[in-house]
Amino acid sequence: MTKLLTAASPMTGLELMQALKSGDIPAPGFAVTLGVEPVAFAPGRAAFALDPGPEHVSPLGTVHGGILSTLLDSAVGCAIHTTLAADDLYTTIDLDVKFVRPVRPGQGQITAEARTVHVGGRIATAEGRIVDADGTLYAHATTTCLITRA
Amino acid sequence: MTKLLTAASPMTGLELMQALKSGDIPAPGFAVTLGVEPVAFAPGRAAFALDPGPEHVSPLGTVHGGILSTLLDSAVGCAIHTTLAADDLYTTIDLDVKFVRPVRPGQGQITAEARTVHVGGRIATAEGRIVDADGTLYAHATTTCLITRA
Amino acid sequence: MTKLLTAASPMTGLELMQALKSGDIPAPGFAVTLGVEPVAFAPGRAAFALDPGPEHVSPLGTVHGGILSTLLDSAVGCAIHTTLAADDLYTTIDLDVKFVRPVRPGQGQITAEARTVHVGGRIATAEGRIVDADGTLYAHATTTCLITRA
Amino acid sequence: MTKLLTAASPMTGLELMQALKSGDIPAPGFAVTLGVEPVAFAPGRAAFALDPGPEHVSPLGTVHGGILSTLLDSAVGCAIHTTLAADDLYTTIDLDVKFVRPVRPGQGQITAEARTVHVGGRIATAEGRIVDADGTLYAHATTTCLITRA
Repeated sequence: MTKLLTAASPMTGLELMQALKSGDIPAPGFAVTLGVEPVAFAPGRAAFALDPGPEHVSPLGTVHGGILSTLLDSAVGCAIHTTLAADDLYTTIDLDVKFVRPVRPGQGQITAEARTVHVGGRIATAEGRIVDADGTLYAHATTTCLITRA
Repeated sequence: MTKLLTAASPMTGLELMQALKSGDIPAPGFAVTLGVEPVAFAPGRAAFALDPGPEHVSPLGTVHGGILSTLLDSAVGCAIHTTLAADDLYTTIDLDVKFVRPVRPGQGQITAEARTVHVGGRIATAEGRIVDADGTLYAHATTTCLITRA
Repeated sequence: MTKLLTAASPMTGLELMQALKSGDIPAPGFAVTLGVEPVAFAPGRAAFALDPGPEHVSPLGTVHGGILSTLLDSAVGCAIHTTLAADDLYTTIDLDVKFVRPVRPGQGQITAEARTVHVGGRIATAEGRIVDADGTLYAHATTTCLITRA
Repeated sequence: MTKLLTAASPMTGLELMQALKSGDIPAPGFAVTLGVEPVAFAPGRAAFALDPGPEHVSPLGTVHGGILSTLLDSAVGCAIHTTLAADDLYTTIDLDVKFVRPVRPGQGQITAEARTVHVGGRIATAEGRIVDADGTLYAHATTTCLITRA
Protein backbone atom coordinates (compact mmCIF):
# COMPACT_ATOMS: atom_id res chain seq x y z
CA MET A 1 0.00 0.00 0.00
CA THR A 2 3.08 2.25 0.05
CA LYS A 3 2.05 2.97 -3.53
CA LEU A 4 -0.93 4.94 -2.27
CA LEU A 5 1.21 7.18 -0.11
CA THR A 6 3.76 7.69 -2.85
CA ALA A 7 1.01 8.47 -5.35
CA ALA A 8 -0.56 10.86 -2.91
CA SER A 9 2.53 12.75 -1.83
CA PRO A 10 2.22 15.62 -4.33
CA MET A 11 -1.36 16.19 -3.07
CA THR A 12 -2.52 18.15 -0.06
CA GLY A 13 -4.63 16.24 2.43
CA LEU A 14 -7.80 17.78 1.03
CA GLU A 15 -6.82 16.88 -2.55
CA LEU A 16 -6.13 13.30 -1.44
CA MET A 17 -9.54 13.04 0.25
CA GLN A 18 -11.25 14.37 -2.88
CA ALA A 19 -9.33 11.90 -5.04
CA LEU A 20 -10.54 9.06 -2.80
CA LYS A 21 -14.11 10.32 -3.11
CA SER A 22 -13.96 10.67 -6.90
CA GLY A 23 -12.36 7.24 -7.27
CA ASP A 24 -9.14 8.63 -8.79
CA ILE A 25 -7.41 6.84 -5.91
CA PRO A 26 -8.76 3.34 -5.27
CA ALA A 27 -10.68 2.73 -2.03
CA PRO A 28 -8.39 1.39 0.72
CA GLY A 29 -8.81 -2.18 1.94
CA PHE A 30 -10.78 -1.47 5.11
CA ALA A 31 -13.35 0.61 3.17
CA VAL A 32 -13.98 -2.17 0.64
CA THR A 33 -14.20 -4.79 3.40
CA LEU A 34 -16.68 -2.84 5.52
CA GLY A 35 -18.54 -0.81 2.89
CA VAL A 36 -17.41 2.57 4.24
CA GLU A 37 -18.09 5.35 1.72
CA PRO A 38 -16.43 8.79 1.55
CA VAL A 39 -19.22 11.40 1.53
CA ALA A 40 -17.92 14.95 1.84
CA PHE A 41 -14.68 16.84 2.55
CA ALA A 42 -13.89 20.49 3.17
CA PRO A 43 -11.06 22.22 5.07
CA GLY A 44 -11.28 20.83 8.62
CA ARG A 45 -14.32 18.67 7.82
CA ALA A 46 -14.93 15.10 6.68
CA ALA A 47 -17.87 12.70 6.48
CA PHE A 48 -18.12 8.95 5.79
CA ALA A 49 -21.22 6.75 5.52
CA LEU A 50 -22.12 3.10 6.11
CA ASP A 51 -25.24 1.07 5.35
CA PRO A 52 -25.33 -1.27 8.36
CA GLY A 53 -26.12 -4.91 7.63
CA PRO A 54 -25.81 -8.37 9.17
CA GLU A 55 -22.11 -8.41 8.19
CA HIS A 56 -21.48 -5.72 10.85
CA VAL A 57 -23.20 -7.20 13.89
CA SER A 58 -21.78 -8.34 17.22
CA PRO A 59 -23.13 -11.37 19.12
CA LEU A 60 -25.62 -8.95 20.70
CA GLY A 61 -27.33 -8.54 17.29
CA THR A 62 -26.57 -4.83 16.93
CA VAL A 63 -23.76 -3.21 14.93
CA HIS A 64 -20.42 -3.86 16.65
CA GLY A 65 -19.04 -0.83 18.48
CA GLY A 66 -15.76 -1.36 16.65
CA ILE A 67 -17.48 -0.81 13.30
CA LEU A 68 -18.94 2.45 14.58
CA SER A 69 -15.47 3.32 15.90
CA THR A 70 -14.01 2.64 12.45
CA LEU A 71 -16.52 5.01 10.83
CA LEU A 72 -15.77 7.70 13.44
CA ASP A 73 -11.99 7.17 13.30
CA SER A 74 -12.11 7.66 9.52
CA ALA A 75 -14.08 10.88 9.84
CA VAL A 76 -12.11 12.50 12.66
CA GLY A 77 -8.72 11.51 11.23
CA CYS A 78 -9.61 12.74 7.75
CA ALA A 79 -11.02 16.02 9.12
CA ILE A 80 -7.48 16.64 10.39
CA HIS A 81 -5.91 15.27 7.20
CA THR A 82 -7.82 17.87 5.11
CA THR A 83 -5.81 20.61 6.86
CA LEU A 84 -2.37 19.16 6.02
CA ALA A 85 0.08 20.27 3.34
CA ALA A 86 1.30 17.90 0.64
CA ASP A 87 4.18 16.30 2.50
CA ASP A 88 2.87 16.51 6.06
CA LEU A 89 2.28 13.17 7.77
CA TYR A 90 -0.08 12.33 10.61
CA THR A 91 -0.85 9.40 12.83
CA THR A 92 -3.78 8.87 15.17
CA ILE A 93 -2.66 8.44 18.77
CA ASP A 94 -5.99 8.50 20.62
CA LEU A 95 -9.64 7.73 19.82
CA ASP A 96 -12.37 8.09 22.44
CA VAL A 97 -15.87 6.92 21.49
CA LYS A 98 -19.15 7.32 23.40
CA PHE A 99 -21.96 5.00 22.30
CA VAL A 100 -25.38 6.45 23.06
CA ARG A 101 -27.82 4.26 21.06
CA PRO A 102 -27.56 0.86 19.34
CA VAL A 103 -27.39 0.79 15.53
CA ARG A 104 -29.42 -2.05 13.98
CA PRO A 105 -28.71 -3.88 10.72
CA GLY A 106 -31.10 -2.76 8.00
CA GLN A 107 -32.03 0.51 9.68
CA GLY A 108 -30.66 2.59 6.80
CA GLN A 109 -27.51 4.60 6.17
CA ILE A 110 -25.62 6.24 9.01
CA THR A 111 -23.07 9.01 8.58
CA ALA A 112 -20.08 10.07 10.67
CA GLU A 113 -19.55 13.82 10.40
CA ALA A 114 -16.37 15.32 11.86
CA ARG A 115 -14.58 18.61 12.26
CA THR A 116 -11.28 19.74 13.71
CA VAL A 117 -11.24 21.32 17.16
CA HIS A 118 -7.55 22.31 17.35
CA VAL A 119 -4.78 22.15 14.75
CA GLY A 120 -1.36 22.97 16.19
CA GLY A 121 2.20 22.40 15.06
CA ARG A 122 2.54 18.85 16.36
CA ILE A 123 -0.89 17.93 17.75
CA ALA A 124 -4.38 18.21 16.30
CA THR A 125 -7.74 17.23 17.77
CA ALA A 126 -11.12 16.62 16.14
CA GLU A 127 -14.62 15.55 17.08
CA GLY A 128 -17.29 13.59 15.20
CA ARG A 129 -20.79 12.20 15.48
CA ILE A 130 -22.72 9.34 13.91
CA VAL A 131 -26.26 10.29 12.91
CA ASP A 132 -28.91 8.76 10.66
CA ALA A 133 -30.96 10.49 7.94
CA ASP A 134 -33.27 11.95 10.62
CA GLY A 135 -30.37 13.38 12.63
CA THR A 136 -30.72 10.88 15.48
CA LEU A 137 -27.40 10.56 17.34
CA TYR A 138 -25.86 7.08 17.83
CA ALA A 139 -22.27 7.74 18.90
CA HIS A 140 -19.75 10.56 19.20
CA ALA A 141 -15.99 10.67 19.41
CA THR A 142 -12.87 12.75 19.83
CA THR A 143 -9.38 12.05 18.52
CA THR A 144 -5.83 13.30 18.90
CA CYS A 145 -3.38 13.06 16.00
CA LEU A 146 0.38 13.58 15.95
CA ILE A 147 1.56 15.63 12.97
CA THR A 148 4.98 15.53 11.33
CA ARG A 149 5.38 18.71 9.31
CA ALA A 150 7.23 18.39 6.00
CA MET B 1 -29.52 -11.80 14.91
CA THR B 2 -32.02 -11.79 17.79
CA LYS B 3 -31.83 -15.56 17.42
CA LEU B 4 -28.32 -15.50 18.88
CA LEU B 5 -29.40 -13.69 22.01
CA THR B 6 -32.46 -15.90 22.46
CA ALA B 7 -30.34 -18.99 21.97
CA ALA B 8 -27.80 -17.67 24.42
CA SER B 9 -30.13 -16.58 27.18
CA PRO B 10 -29.90 -19.77 29.28
CA MET B 11 -26.09 -19.42 29.21
CA THR B 12 -23.89 -17.33 31.47
CA GLY B 13 -21.62 -14.85 29.72
CA LEU B 14 -18.66 -17.18 30.07
CA GLU B 15 -20.63 -20.12 28.64
CA LEU B 16 -21.69 -17.98 25.70
CA MET B 17 -18.08 -16.96 25.00
CA GLN B 18 -16.99 -20.58 25.12
CA ALA B 19 -19.81 -21.58 22.76
CA LEU B 20 -18.63 -18.92 20.30
CA LYS B 21 -15.09 -20.23 20.56
CA SER B 22 -16.09 -23.88 20.05
CA GLY B 23 -18.35 -22.97 17.14
CA ASP B 24 -21.53 -24.17 18.88
CA ILE B 25 -22.82 -20.64 18.26
CA PRO B 26 -21.99 -19.32 14.79
CA ALA B 27 -19.51 -16.45 14.48
CA PRO B 28 -21.26 -13.07 14.40
CA GLY B 29 -21.23 -11.01 11.21
CA PHE B 30 -18.44 -8.59 12.12
CA ALA B 31 -16.09 -11.47 13.01
CA VAL B 32 -16.64 -13.22 9.67
CA THR B 33 -16.24 -9.93 7.77
CA LEU B 34 -12.98 -8.94 9.46
CA GLY B 35 -11.50 -12.33 10.34
CA VAL B 36 -11.58 -11.77 14.10
CA GLU B 37 -11.04 -15.04 15.99
CA PRO B 38 -11.99 -15.84 19.59
CA VAL B 39 -8.87 -17.10 21.37
CA ALA B 40 -9.36 -17.55 25.11
CA PHE B 41 -11.90 -16.79 27.84
CA ALA B 42 -11.82 -17.05 31.62
CA PRO B 43 -13.70 -15.22 34.36
CA GLY B 44 -12.90 -11.53 33.80
CA ARG B 45 -10.61 -12.25 30.85
CA ALA B 46 -10.99 -12.47 27.07
CA ALA B 47 -8.69 -12.54 24.05
CA PHE B 48 -9.34 -12.20 20.30
CA ALA B 49 -6.86 -12.44 17.39
CA LEU B 50 -6.55 -11.05 13.86
CA ASP B 51 -4.16 -11.79 11.01
CA PRO B 52 -3.77 -8.32 9.47
CA GLY B 53 -3.88 -8.16 5.67
CA PRO B 54 -4.45 -5.70 2.83
CA GLU B 55 -8.22 -5.90 3.49
CA HIS B 56 -7.67 -4.05 6.79
CA VAL B 57 -5.57 -1.09 5.66
CA SER B 58 -6.31 2.63 5.66
CA PRO B 59 -5.13 5.02 2.92
CA LEU B 60 -1.91 5.36 4.94
CA GLY B 61 -1.08 1.72 4.14
CA THR B 62 -1.17 0.49 7.73
CA VAL B 63 -4.01 -1.31 9.50
CA HIS B 64 -6.90 1.12 10.11
CA GLY B 65 -7.19 2.27 13.72
CA GLY B 66 -10.85 1.32 13.61
CA ILE B 67 -9.93 -2.32 12.93
CA LEU B 68 -7.61 -2.29 15.96
CA SER B 69 -10.42 -0.62 17.93
CA THR B 70 -12.79 -3.43 16.87
CA LEU B 71 -10.36 -6.07 18.12
CA LEU B 72 -9.92 -4.20 21.42
CA ASP B 73 -13.65 -3.48 21.82
CA SER B 74 -14.36 -7.20 21.40
CA ALA B 75 -11.80 -8.14 24.02
CA VAL B 76 -12.68 -5.55 26.67
CA GLY B 77 -16.44 -6.00 26.24
CA CYS B 78 -16.22 -9.79 26.40
CA ALA B 79 -13.93 -9.66 29.46
CA ILE B 80 -16.86 -7.98 31.21
CA HIS B 81 -19.39 -10.32 29.57
CA THR B 82 -17.61 -13.35 31.08
CA THR B 83 -18.58 -12.08 34.55
CA LEU B 84 -22.33 -11.82 33.83
CA ALA B 85 -25.10 -14.21 34.87
CA ALA B 86 -27.40 -15.86 32.32
CA ASP B 87 -29.98 -13.12 31.94
CA ASP B 88 -27.81 -10.07 32.63
CA LEU B 89 -27.44 -7.66 29.71
CA TYR B 90 -24.66 -5.20 28.98
CA THR B 91 -23.94 -2.44 26.53
CA THR B 92 -20.67 -0.63 25.85
CA ILE B 93 -20.92 3.09 26.52
CA ASP B 94 -17.31 4.20 26.19
CA LEU B 95 -14.17 2.96 24.40
CA ASP B 96 -10.87 4.82 24.66
CA VAL B 97 -8.00 3.59 22.48
CA LYS B 98 -4.33 4.67 22.49
CA PHE B 99 -2.36 3.74 19.36
CA VAL B 100 1.36 3.41 20.06
CA ARG B 101 2.76 1.66 16.93
CA PRO B 102 1.45 1.02 13.41
CA VAL B 103 0.32 -2.53 12.52
CA ARG B 104 1.34 -3.57 9.00
CA PRO B 105 -0.48 -6.02 6.71
CA GLY B 106 1.33 -9.35 6.56
CA GLN B 107 3.27 -8.83 9.79
CA GLY B 108 1.63 -11.84 11.46
CA GLN B 109 -1.12 -12.42 13.97
CA ILE B 110 -1.92 -9.82 16.63
CA THR B 111 -3.92 -10.53 19.77
CA ALA B 112 -6.05 -8.28 21.98
CA GLU B 113 -5.91 -9.45 25.57
CA ALA B 114 -8.30 -7.90 28.10
CA ARG B 115 -9.28 -8.09 31.72
CA THR B 116 -11.86 -6.41 33.93
CA VAL B 117 -10.74 -3.59 36.22
CA HIS B 118 -14.01 -2.98 38.10
CA VAL B 119 -17.32 -4.86 38.03
CA GLY B 120 -20.07 -3.08 39.97
CA GLY B 121 -23.83 -3.33 40.03
CA ARG B 122 -24.50 -1.07 37.07
CA ILE B 123 -21.08 -0.14 35.69
CA ALA B 124 -18.06 -2.24 34.77
CA THR B 125 -14.69 -1.22 33.36
CA ALA B 126 -12.01 -3.23 31.58
CA GLU B 127 -8.64 -2.71 29.92
CA GLY B 128 -6.94 -4.44 27.01
CA ARG B 129 -3.79 -4.46 24.89
CA ILE B 130 -2.88 -5.52 21.37
CA VAL B 131 0.41 -7.40 21.17
CA ASP B 132 2.08 -9.59 18.59
CA ALA B 133 3.69 -13.00 19.09
CA ASP B 134 6.83 -11.31 20.49
CA GLY B 135 4.84 -9.27 23.01
CA THR B 136 5.39 -5.96 21.21
CA LEU B 137 2.64 -3.49 22.14
CA TYR B 138 0.63 -1.79 19.35
CA ALA B 139 -2.40 -0.28 21.10
CA HIS B 140 -4.17 -0.30 24.43
CA ALA B 141 -7.69 0.57 25.51
CA THR B 142 -10.15 0.99 28.34
CA THR B 143 -13.92 0.59 28.24
CA THR B 144 -16.97 1.28 30.38
CA CYS B 145 -20.06 -0.93 30.09
CA LEU B 146 -23.56 -0.41 31.50
CA ILE B 147 -25.01 -3.57 33.02
CA THR B 148 -28.68 -4.43 33.40
CA ARG B 149 -28.97 -7.14 36.03
CA ALA B 150 -31.63 -9.82 35.46
CA MET C 1 -21.99 18.13 53.18
CA THR C 2 -25.10 15.90 53.20
CA LYS C 3 -26.90 19.06 54.27
CA LEU C 4 -26.39 20.50 50.80
CA LEU C 5 -28.02 17.56 49.10
CA THR C 6 -30.89 17.50 51.57
CA ALA C 7 -31.41 21.21 51.15
CA ALA C 8 -31.31 20.81 47.41
CA SER C 9 -33.68 17.91 47.04
CA PRO C 10 -36.84 19.96 46.40
CA MET C 11 -34.98 21.83 43.62
CA THR C 12 -34.49 20.77 40.04
CA GLY C 13 -30.90 20.60 38.85
CA LEU C 14 -31.19 23.96 37.16
CA GLU C 15 -32.65 25.57 40.30
CA LEU C 16 -29.79 24.11 42.35
CA MET C 17 -27.20 25.52 39.94
CA GLN C 18 -28.83 28.93 40.08
CA ALA C 19 -28.92 28.81 43.89
CA LEU C 20 -25.18 28.06 43.88
CA LYS C 21 -24.57 30.98 41.56
CA SER C 22 -26.67 33.43 43.62
CA GLY C 23 -25.04 32.29 46.86
CA ASP C 24 -28.30 30.96 48.34
CA ILE C 25 -26.44 27.67 48.66
CA PRO C 26 -22.88 28.06 49.95
CA ALA C 27 -20.01 27.29 47.57
CA PRO C 28 -18.81 23.69 47.95
CA GLY C 29 -15.37 22.98 49.40
CA PHE C 30 -13.48 22.39 46.15
CA ALA C 31 -14.73 25.71 44.71
CA VAL C 32 -13.54 27.69 47.73
CA THR C 33 -10.19 25.87 47.75
CA LEU C 34 -9.48 26.43 44.06
CA GLY C 35 -11.35 29.68 43.38
CA VAL C 36 -13.76 28.14 40.87
CA GLU C 37 -16.70 30.49 40.17
CA PRO C 38 -20.12 29.58 38.77
CA VAL C 39 -20.78 31.80 35.74
CA ALA C 40 -23.90 30.83 33.81
CA PHE C 41 -26.51 28.05 33.67
CA ALA C 42 -29.32 27.25 31.25
CA PRO C 43 -31.05 23.99 30.33
CA GLY C 44 -28.26 21.72 29.07
CA ARG C 45 -25.58 24.38 29.54
CA ALA C 46 -23.16 25.40 32.30
CA ALA C 47 -20.07 27.59 32.63
CA PHE C 48 -17.47 28.00 35.39
CA ALA C 49 -14.49 30.37 35.56
CA LEU C 50 -11.06 30.43 37.21
CA ASP C 51 -8.42 33.15 37.55
CA PRO C 52 -5.21 31.09 37.30
CA GLY C 53 -2.47 31.96 39.78
CA PRO C 54 0.69 30.51 41.33
CA GLU C 55 -1.50 28.39 43.65
CA HIS C 56 -2.57 26.33 40.61
CA VAL C 57 0.78 25.51 39.01
CA SER C 58 2.52 22.19 38.49
CA PRO C 59 6.31 21.74 38.77
CA LEU C 60 6.44 22.68 35.07
CA GLY C 61 5.34 26.23 35.99
CA THR C 62 2.03 26.12 34.10
CA VAL C 63 -1.43 25.46 35.50
CA HIS C 64 -1.72 21.79 36.49
CA GLY C 65 -3.79 19.72 34.07
CA GLY C 66 -5.81 18.46 37.01
CA ILE C 67 -6.97 22.00 37.80
CA LEU C 68 -8.12 22.42 34.20
CA SER C 69 -9.79 19.01 34.48
CA THR C 70 -11.60 20.19 37.63
CA LEU C 71 -12.94 23.25 35.83
CA LEU C 72 -14.06 21.12 32.87
CA ASP C 73 -15.53 18.36 35.07
CA SER C 74 -17.60 20.99 36.89
CA ALA C 75 -18.92 22.43 33.64
CA VAL C 76 -19.75 19.17 31.84
CA GLY C 77 -21.29 17.54 34.93
CA CYS C 78 -23.42 20.58 35.71
CA ALA C 79 -24.56 20.90 32.09
CA ILE C 80 -26.10 17.46 32.59
CA HIS C 81 -27.32 18.34 36.09
CA THR C 82 -29.33 21.28 34.70
CA THR C 83 -31.51 18.78 32.81
CA LEU C 84 -32.45 16.69 35.88
CA ALA C 85 -35.69 16.71 37.85
CA ALA C 86 -35.77 17.44 41.58
CA ASP C 87 -35.04 13.98 42.90
CA ASP C 88 -32.93 12.60 40.08
CA LEU C 89 -29.35 11.73 41.00
CA TYR C 90 -26.28 11.57 38.79
CA THR C 91 -22.69 10.48 39.09
CA THR C 92 -19.80 11.09 36.70
CA ILE C 93 -18.32 7.83 35.41
CA ASP C 94 -15.94 9.09 32.73
CA LEU C 95 -14.00 12.30 32.00
CA ASP C 96 -11.75 12.62 28.96
CA VAL C 97 -9.67 15.79 28.65
CA LYS C 98 -7.52 16.99 25.73
CA PHE C 99 -4.96 19.68 26.59
CA VAL C 100 -4.06 21.81 23.58
CA ARG C 101 -2.21 24.83 25.07
CA PRO C 102 -0.60 25.59 28.44
CA VAL C 103 -2.42 27.98 30.80
CA ARG C 104 -0.06 30.37 32.62
CA PRO C 105 -0.55 31.88 36.07
CA GLY C 106 -1.55 35.53 35.81
CA GLN C 107 -2.73 35.32 32.22
CA GLY C 108 -6.30 36.30 33.16
CA GLN C 109 -9.59 34.50 33.66
CA ILE C 110 -10.37 31.30 31.80
CA THR C 111 -13.87 29.85 31.41
CA ALA C 112 -15.09 26.30 30.89
CA GLU C 113 -18.26 26.28 28.80
CA ALA C 114 -20.21 23.03 28.44
CA ARG C 115 -23.34 21.63 26.87
CA THR C 116 -25.06 18.26 26.82
CA VAL C 117 -24.64 16.03 23.78
CA HIS C 118 -27.04 13.20 24.74
CA VAL C 119 -29.44 12.85 27.68
CA GLY C 120 -31.00 9.40 27.88
CA GLY C 121 -32.79 7.48 30.60
CA ARG C 122 -29.69 6.15 32.36
CA ILE C 123 -26.74 7.73 30.54
CA ALA C 124 -25.98 11.30 29.56
CA THR C 125 -22.96 12.78 27.77
CA ALA C 126 -21.68 16.35 27.56
CA GLU C 127 -18.77 18.28 26.07
CA GLY C 128 -16.93 21.39 27.21
CA ARG C 129 -14.09 23.76 26.34
CA ILE C 130 -11.78 26.07 28.24
CA VAL C 131 -11.28 29.42 26.55
CA ASP C 132 -9.95 32.81 27.62
CA ALA C 133 -11.53 36.22 27.10
CA ASP C 134 -10.26 36.25 23.49
CA GLY C 135 -11.78 32.86 22.72
CA THR C 136 -8.40 31.07 22.57
CA LEU C 137 -8.87 27.35 23.25
CA TYR C 138 -6.77 25.68 25.99
CA ALA C 139 -8.46 22.32 26.61
CA HIS C 140 -11.62 20.41 25.76
CA ALA C 141 -13.39 17.47 27.32
CA THR C 142 -16.22 14.98 27.15
CA THR C 143 -17.96 13.22 30.01
CA THR C 144 -20.39 10.38 30.63
CA CYS C 145 -22.74 10.48 33.63
CA LEU C 146 -24.94 7.73 35.07
CA ILE C 147 -28.40 8.96 36.01
CA THR C 148 -30.72 7.48 38.63
CA ARG C 149 -34.23 8.70 37.89
CA ALA C 150 -36.42 9.49 40.89
CA MET D 1 7.78 29.28 38.66
CA THR D 2 10.34 29.29 35.84
CA LYS D 3 12.86 29.10 38.63
CA LEU D 4 11.79 25.55 39.37
CA LEU D 5 12.36 24.43 35.81
CA THR D 6 15.68 26.23 35.62
CA ALA D 7 16.79 24.75 38.91
CA ALA D 8 15.70 21.33 37.76
CA SER D 9 17.25 21.34 34.33
CA PRO D 10 20.50 19.56 35.25
CA MET D 11 18.41 16.77 36.85
CA THR D 12 16.87 13.77 35.17
CA GLY D 13 13.13 13.38 35.61
CA LEU D 14 13.64 10.80 38.34
CA GLU D 15 16.11 13.05 40.19
CA LEU D 16 13.62 15.92 39.99
CA MET D 17 10.82 13.75 41.40
CA GLN D 18 13.06 12.63 44.24
CA ALA D 19 14.04 16.25 44.97
CA LEU D 20 10.35 17.17 45.19
CA LYS D 21 9.76 14.29 47.57
CA SER D 22 12.72 15.14 49.81
CA GLY D 23 11.75 18.82 49.87
CA ASP D 24 14.98 19.95 48.15
CA ILE D 25 12.66 21.52 45.59
CA PRO D 26 9.67 23.31 47.11
CA ALA D 27 6.22 21.84 46.55
CA PRO D 28 4.48 23.39 43.52
CA GLY D 29 1.43 25.59 44.02
CA PHE D 30 -1.28 23.04 43.21
CA ALA D 31 0.19 20.54 45.70
CA VAL D 32 0.18 23.06 48.54
CA THR D 33 -3.35 24.21 47.66
CA LEU D 34 -4.83 20.72 47.53
CA GLY D 35 -2.59 18.83 49.97
CA VAL D 36 -1.21 16.44 47.37
CA GLU D 37 1.85 14.59 48.71
CA PRO D 38 4.59 12.86 46.68
CA VAL D 39 4.89 9.28 47.93
CA ALA D 40 7.20 7.14 45.81
CA PHE D 41 9.13 7.27 42.54
CA ALA D 42 11.04 4.69 40.55
CA PRO D 43 11.85 4.37 36.83
CA GLY D 44 8.46 4.34 35.10
CA ARG D 45 6.52 4.56 38.37
CA ALA D 46 5.08 7.33 40.55
CA ALA D 47 2.64 7.63 43.44
CA PHE D 48 0.94 10.61 45.09
CA ALA D 49 -1.41 10.69 48.10
CA LEU D 50 -4.26 12.87 49.38
CA ASP D 51 -6.17 12.93 52.66
CA PRO D 52 -9.66 13.87 51.44
CA GLY D 53 -11.51 16.49 53.49
CA PRO D 54 -14.38 18.95 53.24
CA GLU D 55 -12.15 21.30 51.25
CA HIS D 56 -12.27 18.80 48.34
CA VAL D 57 -15.99 18.14 48.01
CA SER D 58 -18.42 18.90 45.19
CA PRO D 59 -22.04 20.01 45.77
CA LEU D 60 -22.88 16.27 45.86
CA GLY D 61 -20.92 15.96 49.15
CA THR D 62 -18.28 13.58 47.81
CA VAL D 63 -14.76 14.43 46.65
CA HIS D 64 -14.93 16.32 43.34
CA GLY D 65 -13.96 14.21 40.34
CA GLY D 66 -11.55 16.95 39.30
CA ILE D 67 -9.59 16.51 42.54
CA LEU D 68 -9.30 12.78 41.85
CA SER D 69 -8.29 13.66 38.28
CA THR D 70 -5.58 15.97 39.65
CA LEU D 71 -4.16 13.19 41.82
CA LEU D 72 -4.22 10.76 38.86
CA ASP D 73 -2.81 13.32 36.41
CA SER D 74 0.11 13.93 38.77
CA ALA D 75 0.84 10.22 39.08
CA VAL D 76 0.56 9.26 35.40
CA GLY D 77 2.47 12.34 34.19
CA CYS D 78 5.27 11.84 36.70
CA ALA D 79 5.52 8.11 35.91
CA ILE D 80 6.46 9.24 32.41
CA HIS D 81 8.64 12.08 33.73
CA THR D 82 10.77 9.57 35.69
CA THR D 83 11.91 8.07 32.38
CA LEU D 84 13.15 11.34 30.87
CA ALA D 85 16.72 12.59 30.55
CA ALA D 86 17.86 15.89 32.06
CA ASP D 87 16.84 18.22 29.26
CA ASP D 88 13.87 16.33 27.85
CA LEU D 89 10.53 18.13 28.11
CA TYR D 90 7.04 16.68 28.19
CA THR D 91 3.49 17.92 28.13
CA THR D 92 0.29 16.05 28.86
CA ILE D 93 -2.06 16.00 25.89
CA ASP D 94 -4.75 13.57 27.05
CA LEU D 95 -6.16 12.37 30.37
CA ASP D 96 -8.99 9.84 30.54
CA VAL D 97 -10.44 9.07 33.97
CA LYS D 98 -12.98 6.39 34.96
CA PHE D 99 -14.68 6.95 38.34
CA VAL D 100 -15.88 3.69 39.89
CA ARG D 101 -16.70 4.61 43.52
CA PRO D 102 -17.26 7.89 45.39
CA VAL D 103 -14.50 9.12 47.73
CA ARG D 104 -15.85 10.63 50.95
CA PRO D 105 -14.23 13.37 53.05
CA GLY D 106 -12.67 11.93 56.19
CA GLN D 107 -12.46 8.38 54.89
CA GLY D 108 -8.66 8.33 55.15
CA GLN D 109 -5.75 8.68 52.77
CA ILE D 110 -6.06 7.65 49.13
CA THR D 111 -3.12 7.02 46.82
CA ALA D 112 -2.76 7.29 43.05
CA GLU D 113 -0.25 4.73 41.79
CA ALA D 114 0.89 4.91 38.17
CA ARG D 115 3.21 3.23 35.73
CA THR D 116 4.20 3.78 32.12
CA VAL D 117 2.64 1.60 29.44
CA HIS D 118 4.62 2.83 26.40
CA VAL D 119 7.56 5.22 26.14
CA GLY D 120 8.43 6.09 22.55
CA GLY D 121 10.44 8.84 20.91
CA ARG D 122 7.68 11.45 20.82
CA ILE D 123 4.71 9.86 22.61
CA ALA D 124 4.42 8.09 25.96
CA THR D 125 1.40 6.57 27.69
CA ALA D 126 0.81 5.62 31.31
CA GLU D 127 -1.96 4.26 33.51
CA GLY D 128 -2.83 4.81 37.16
CA ARG D 129 -5.30 3.89 39.88
CA ILE D 130 -6.59 5.48 43.06
CA VAL D 131 -6.85 3.04 45.95
CA ASP D 132 -7.22 3.38 49.71
CA ALA D 133 -5.18 1.66 52.44
CA ASP D 134 -7.27 -1.52 51.94
CA GLY D 135 -6.67 -1.59 48.22
CA THR D 136 -10.25 -0.62 47.33
CA LEU D 137 -10.36 0.96 43.86
CA TYR D 138 -11.98 4.39 43.41
CA ALA D 139 -10.87 5.59 39.97
CA HIS D 140 -8.44 4.70 37.21
CA ALA D 141 -6.92 6.65 34.35
CA THR D 142 -4.74 6.63 31.27
CA THR D 143 -2.72 9.49 29.83
CA THR D 144 -0.79 10.40 26.70
CA CYS D 145 2.20 12.77 26.88
CA LEU D 146 4.11 14.46 24.08
CA ILE D 147 7.88 14.36 24.60
CA THR D 148 10.45 16.80 23.24
CA ARG D 149 13.83 15.09 23.35
CA ALA D 150 16.82 17.27 24.23
